[in-house]
Amino acid sequence: MTIPSHIIDMLHKVRARFQIEPIQERMLPSDAEFTTLRPVRKASVSSVEKYWNRLQETASPMDQNALADPLTMADPDVFSANIENFIGTVKMPVGVIGPLRINGLNAHGDFHVPMATTEAALVASYARGAYASTKSGGISTALLYEGVIRTPAFVFDDLLNAGMFVEWVVNEIEPLKAAAESTTQHGKLVSVEPVVDNNIVFLICRYTTGDAAGQNMVTIATNALCENIAARCPITMKAWYIEGNFSGDKKASFLGLVTGRGRKVSASVTLTAEVVEKTLGTSVQAMLDYGQVANLGSHLSGQLGAQAHFANGLAALYIATGQDAACVAESAIGITRMEPRGDDLFCSVTMPNILVGSVGGGTSLPSQSAGLNILGLKGAGKGSALAEVAAATCLCGEISIVAAIAAGHFTRAHENLARHR
Amino acid sequence: MTIPSHIIDMLHKVRARFQIEPIQERMLPSDAEFTTLRPVRKASVSSVEKYWNRLQETASPMDQNALADPLTMADPDVFSANIENFIGTVKMPVGVIGPLRINGLNAHGDFHVPMATTEAALVASYARGAYASTKSGGISTALLYEGVIRTPAFVFDDLLNAGMFVEWVVNEIEPLKAAAESTTQHGKLVSVEPVVDNNIVFLICRYTTGDAAGQNMVTIATNALCENIAARCPITMKAWYIEGNFSGDKKASFLGLVTGRGRKVSASVTLTAEVVEKTLGTSVQAMLDYGQVANLGSHLSGQLGAQAHFANGLAALYIATGQDAACVAESAIGITRMEPRGDDLFCSVTMPNILVGSVGGGTSLPSQSAGLNILGLKGAGKGSALAEVAAATCLCGEISIVAAIAAGHFTRAHENLARHR
Amino acid sequence: MTIPSHIIDMLHKVRARFQIEPIQERMLPSDAEFTTLRPVRKASVSSVEKYWNRLQETASPMDQNALADPLTMADPDVFSANIENFIGTVKMPVGVIGPLRINGLNAHGDFHVPMATTEAALVASYARGAYASTKSGGISTALLYEGVIRTPAFVFDDLLNAGMFVEWVVNEIEPLKAAAESTTQHGKLVSVEPVVDNNIVFLICRYTTGDAAGQNMVTIATNALCENIAARCPITMKAWYIEGNFSGDKKASFLGLVTGRGRKVSASVTLTAEVVEKTLGTSVQAMLDYGQVANLGSHLSGQLGAQAHFANGLAALYIATGQDAACVAESAIGITRMEPRGDDLFCSVTMPNILVGSVGGGTSLPSQSAGLNILGLKGAGKGSALAEVAAATCLCGEISIVAAIAAGHFTRAHENLARHR
Amino acid sequence: MTIPSHIIDMLHKVRARFQIEPIQERMLPSDAEFTTLRPVRKASVSSVEKYWNRLQETASPMDQNALADPLTMADPDVFSANIENFIGTVKMPVGVIGPLRINGLNAHGDFHVPMATTEAALVASYARGAYASTKSGGISTALLYEGVIRTPAFVFDDLLNAGMFVEWVVNEIEPLKAAAESTTQHGKLVSVEPVVDNNIVFLICRYTTGDAAGQNMVTIATNALCENIAARCPITMKAWYIEGNFSGDKKASFLGLVTGRGRKVSASVTLTAEVVEKTLGTSVQAMLDYGQVANLGSHLSGQLGAQAHFANGLAALYIATGQDAACVAESAIGITRMEPRGDDLFCSVTMPNILVGSVGGGTSLPSQSAGLNILGLKGAGKGSALAEVAAATCLCGEISIVAAIAAGHFTRAHENLARHR
Repeated sequence: MTIPSHIIDMLHKVRARFQIEPIQERMLPSDAEFTTLRPVRKASVSSVEKYWNRLQETASPMDQNALADPLTMADPDVFSANIENFIGTVKMPVGVIGPLRINGLNAHGDFHVPMATTEAALVASYARGAYASTKSGGISTALLYEGVIRTPAFVFDDLLNAGMFVEWVVNEIEPLKAAAESTTQHGKLVSVEPVVDNNIVFLICRYTTGDAAGQNMVTIATNALCENIAARCPITMKAWYIEGNFSGDKKASFLGLVTGRGRKVSASVTLTAEVVEKTLGTSVQAMLDYGQVANLGSHLSGQLGAQAHFANGLAALYIATGQDAACVAESAIGITRMEPRGDDLFCSVTMPNILVGSVGGGTSLPSQSAGLNILGLKGAGKGSALAEVAAATCLCGEISIVAAIAAGHFTRAHENLARHR
Repeated sequence: MTIPSHIIDMLHKVRARFQIEPIQERMLPSDAEFTTLRPVRKASVSSVEKYWNRLQETASPMDQNALADPLTMADPDVFSANIENFIGTVKMPVGVIGPLRINGLNAHGDFHVPMATTEAALVASYARGAYASTKSGGISTALLYEGVIRTPAFVFDDLLNAGMFVEWVVNEIEPLKAAAESTTQHGKLVSVEPVVDNNIVFLICRYTTGDAAGQNMVTIATNALCENIAARCPITMKAWYIEGNFSGDKKASFLGLVTGRGRKVSASVTLTAEVVEKTLGTSVQAMLDYGQVANLGSHLSGQLGAQAHFANGLAALYIATGQDAACVAESAIGITRMEPRGDDLFCSVTMPNILVGSVGGGTSLPSQSAGLNILGLKGAGKGSALAEVAAATCLCGEISIVAAIAAGHFTRAHENLARHR
Repeated sequence: MTIPSHIIDMLHKVRARFQIEPIQERMLPSDAEFTTLRPVRKASVSSVEKYWNRLQETASPMDQNALADPLTMADPDVFSANIENFIGTVKMPVGVIGPLRINGLNAHGDFHVPMATTEAALVASYARGAYASTKSGGISTALLYEGVIRTPAFVFDDLLNAGMFVEWVVNEIEPLKAAAESTTQHGKLVSVEPVVDNNIVFLICRYTTGDAAGQNMVTIATNALCENIAARCPITMKAWYIEGNFSGDKKASFLGLVTGRGRKVSASVTLTAEVVEKTLGTSVQAMLDYGQVANLGSHLSGQLGAQAHFANGLAALYIATGQDAACVAESAIGITRMEPRGDDLFCSVTMPNILVGSVGGGTSLPSQSAGLNILGLKGAGKGSALAEVAAATCLCGEISIVAAIAAGHFTRAHENLARHR
Repeated sequence: MTIPSHIIDMLHKVRARFQIEPIQERMLPSDAEFTTLRPVRKASVSSVEKYWNRLQETASPMDQNALADPLTMADPDVFSANIENFIGTVKMPVGVIGPLRINGLNAHGDFHVPMATTEAALVASYARGAYASTKSGGISTALLYEGVIRTPAFVFDDLLNAGMFVEWVVNEIEPLKAAAESTTQHGKLVSVEPVVDNNIVFLICRYTTGDAAGQNMVTIATNALCENIAARCPITMKAWYIEGNFSGDKKASFLGLVTGRGRKVSASVTLTAEVVEKTLGTSVQAMLDYGQVANLGSHLSGQLGAQAHFANGLAALYIATGQDAACVAESAIGITRMEPRGDDLFCSVTMPNILVGSVGGGTSLPSQSAGLNILGLKGAGKGSALAEVAAATCLCGEISIVAAIAAGHFTRAHENLARHR
């Protein structure tokens, strides 16, 4: 049995779907007629209706009503700056945890954190972690660093021209910085580092972005920088690209782990032994013991850092507060640590890639805005505090899941809460 | 200037937030009183109201109405199997792309794909990719493999006991498999592989999960397997854990890239030169040239595979169809390739970690169910087709963004569509 | 100072090497005449002499004598099966550590381990670890797994053909296995796993290789397998390659970490508190504390696993015993763990990629053969024991360096031992 | 067959080695007596003889003579600064390739490169690449960057103290730099970057190291920096460590790939179509086609960058020239690229982690010194040129192996050259 049996089983399953002849046709391109509806940038009742006329082949009026409900249809244009081809809204349930006490550099006070998810047990688990943390005096947080990067790429004939280009950029950095910053009120270009691979040069352009998450801001600023280079640089260039797929935008990368992208926050709490026992139903030693195994698992499976489920907390918070849910892919990396402190348990998370804003993106949409308001973190001057809330929330989730797995409760929680479906 | 200036700047920013004395207090634990509302598992009008009474310190009645709107409050219990501490629903706008022609092993036909996002330009970009693909005859797709893994860990005194444990498991695999499968109608344990690190053994338990994404299913099945081991295995065990943080659940990992987790799908299309020029506004050669640079960027920044923005398409589709948005963290890895085929452009994505289900999770909620119905992929027998749709959608996004960056349009699209906010 | 100053400094340094005009010429291709000496496969006194005639432009007679010394020149042909264009031998100093007590599945007894290096302090450090381990009763070792992989790649027109190819291979696996194994007396093809990326298929062919390291053996066997496929498979193939750069041969990879390549060995010892204090000059707690920090460092810098300096021990042992020193690149990954056991310190290494043989490669050369004889591990039936010795040796190095850093002695050791040069 | 059969086979193999009772004893610690010979730092004829008296249990007089040959024993003390417990020298055969024409920023001319290896076919393969490169006008090289890092770690009670520590370091950077540089004539501390993980701070200390590889130099300098901090810093520290296992010393890491460690060099050549056909026996298109597959393999197996076998060239050159062979583990990462240039083939390597010196380490030993002299690169002022030679040599190896695999010759070469053994 040289081929693993599950691979053979899978092959049979695939095979069962077709006889050679038909499937060949099935997978071939087809030039059957089709018509695409005209793209819609500004949503209106009638534009939505047009789409649903098209969708009625598969979807029912009930489906239409679930997305294009009367409240949504009262003013579809409210969503026009955030989406195209609008057909309604999906309703993601929101639960709340808290009060979560945060003793932070930027966030300070007792917060209720809205979390949007359809995964049963998630909110309950984070709520438990929040209770344990608050009971232990709250979570200390600090924004350690910020900087969103864009990494345009420039292609030359050879290494010599690439080198001369780097020299030119270094000498011209002030006007280039001015060009970039001319496009934005809040963005500042704080660092440019060239990375050369023979005839190709990437520029790691790092910006602070005020209270916005800032991905668009840095794209536009970097584009201006690139166009300024293209207009003035005397070195012959074969091509330039606004992004060399180097920045880690929307994807986990070791660059992000090593140098950070977005806001880097650390959060910690020392749970008392009593809280671990009474609230979490386990012991400090049991959590530490599991922590060793979990750390080993993270190494052996090739993760970026070591943590349990940052993605759960981040996705729930990002969605509830109008952040970009796709950024979970890059944000869900970092480090969770647990260590003894006398009889108590020190727990920390350090997250180098939190992408959040208290302005911009989806933050102005009504229900997302409400999410930020629940936190008291909508608008100017709140971006850093929001990042600290994100990290503190993730720490609650780490504490709760580690306790649950250490105590053997993990499965039971999911069984009880999810099996009703 | 041995310390990089942006680090010094950041330090000054942090420093400006406090004078040493006050901040020390600010970051210390506090034992001020607090009260947590009773956890709510079954949502009702009154349970929601109770939460909002608490939230009114920060949130306004308008905020309450945005989340706990009349339609949501008509029957809050509909969400009880998916969330705890329910306070309302966040409304994420949904746009639609299509028809997207898919010539797949499992998905076959012209699909309209609902995408939930607040990122302007995203839907327009994917729609463009869908148009180009369909114009070129559609996207071929195939589910190549499936298997959701859970990786319990077992701790022993020493290597010798760990080795004897592995032997016991191998000999007892049939009853263990039976124990695992007794908990589930659809889940099948298809492979168990031990990984030994001295006195610790991880078992990579791989399941097929029918039409569900299956994370809960495999947790419950694996728990039964572990309890069966714990009850019968004669080797002295120091501890066992349902998950050794090895499976890559909710996080990007090289294990997932190498062996797959969830459903592995490959999707491809050969775009005609004419479509590249007329629809995408660039040339085959320009896209290939950029592809080389983007590939280099992915290597140099330490990504898992090489792709542009799977996360955008996945997050939008997952949210619109009731999938677990946190799984974007693990799903957004894989490979995008572009190669010349005569004058035309072959484009493919291969995604080893798609976590979707046509049943279970959030798929039964009204608006999420509508999302699946738009695709015609709700319910039993549709899970594999849904995974193929996910990959085909991501391929559309890859095509569009690569074309945009190659043509220099990327920034303009974001500028035009997002700057209205 | 947007550009980091060390980058500017570096640029000035580079800049100082040229004025634009001259350097352009300096880096251009040149078509000046040159003559290459005829390649030599079978070394002789006269072939060596011819090379040195050529080398005398730069090298002196003393240099010639250092490499082509009289003992080497007594029979240059002894090296002919291991090198081409032979000009002499480099003399790497060898030190010995031990007795190192190994209580292993395959290696059993008190070993003296030869280590070849030019790095001062290395042998002394490993010797200290060996003494501490032996004093604590010796190191337990077990070969857990073995399998050298080759991963040929096959390219097809499209995914459909790739799928049909996989099916063909699965059905034909027995004759393919026979073809592969017909080339070798000791190699066995134990597993074949296909990995599909759209139209490209990699076959992970895993072999046991008897007592040889086996890289050539698996190359030749896999070539036979591929040629058998090429001769008989009816699916149209665009190309096939003996290696798709997937196997991790001669390079660190997560595939190797996850699935192993070569021999996987775990080794452990529990050091008594007394040994830690008296022999290592530190305390169990100090070593554990440093272990936590070192583990964090390994995560944050993106290493493959977590260990201190496997490469030192491996390179020294590989060179001294005729193994392939280039394999250090792939072998130097894995896990070192330290944990308290009562008052004592449990230490383990698990190394998934040890590439060693007690036959083949450089093992028959006189001084390399002597290295194996010192271990008592030359020839048939000793490959597994040799792998266990490698892991045990690395464990000694881990213990010693962790103790040195924990105690603050690390620098002093290097200062004292290396500064004489 | 839920457990893969090769795992079951392996288990049986392991099982066959013991009956439960005996093996338990076999793997237990033993307190049998043992005596370790006194460590020897200064080698002499009599110290070597003492060791061999001990080794005669396993090794024969012939073995002794192979290592402790008359030439080596003429003056064993010559090795005392490079090794402890000296018992002789291992003789690694050296082959030479060239002339290799290098048109470099630092290396310039036609070089003969000595390579020490016991892997048949390696020298022949690199020689072929050198011939093809020189025939095409030679390889352009440039040292792009240099900087060896050490990363001490500092542990505090909490995040607040960690933050205050970072501030203190930033303010005191000048005296700290002076303390570090006071220990070395050639080392310069060019950058310090703090990385904070809650209460733990790593300082990435980056040095230029003149013409030495510099690992000891930066250790000693960083130790002085740390001791200066420890003596003067008013923030309470729980511990500090000279190395937080963060620098990537002796191991592959993404930090090294992203930021470089040691010397970063890029090397390139454009091979004419004629050379590809006549010298390499394949075509430009065939090499490009294989390059695409090889790149995919590197992604899917989780390598650091994408290259074929840098480790072979590096190990052979490092050993032949007295470099630290263990550094192959960190140096063997980076990027190989091949692209069409009209009808010709552009090939480049960019290697961010070359660790070489023209002084220090093993460079003064007689036969290693001869290796450097063959290159004309011994002594002060040659370190950068040596790094360029290393990259150029690796490029030759990449060209040759890619051509061989593309042409289907790879296996044959190994078969012919290695099978004589």
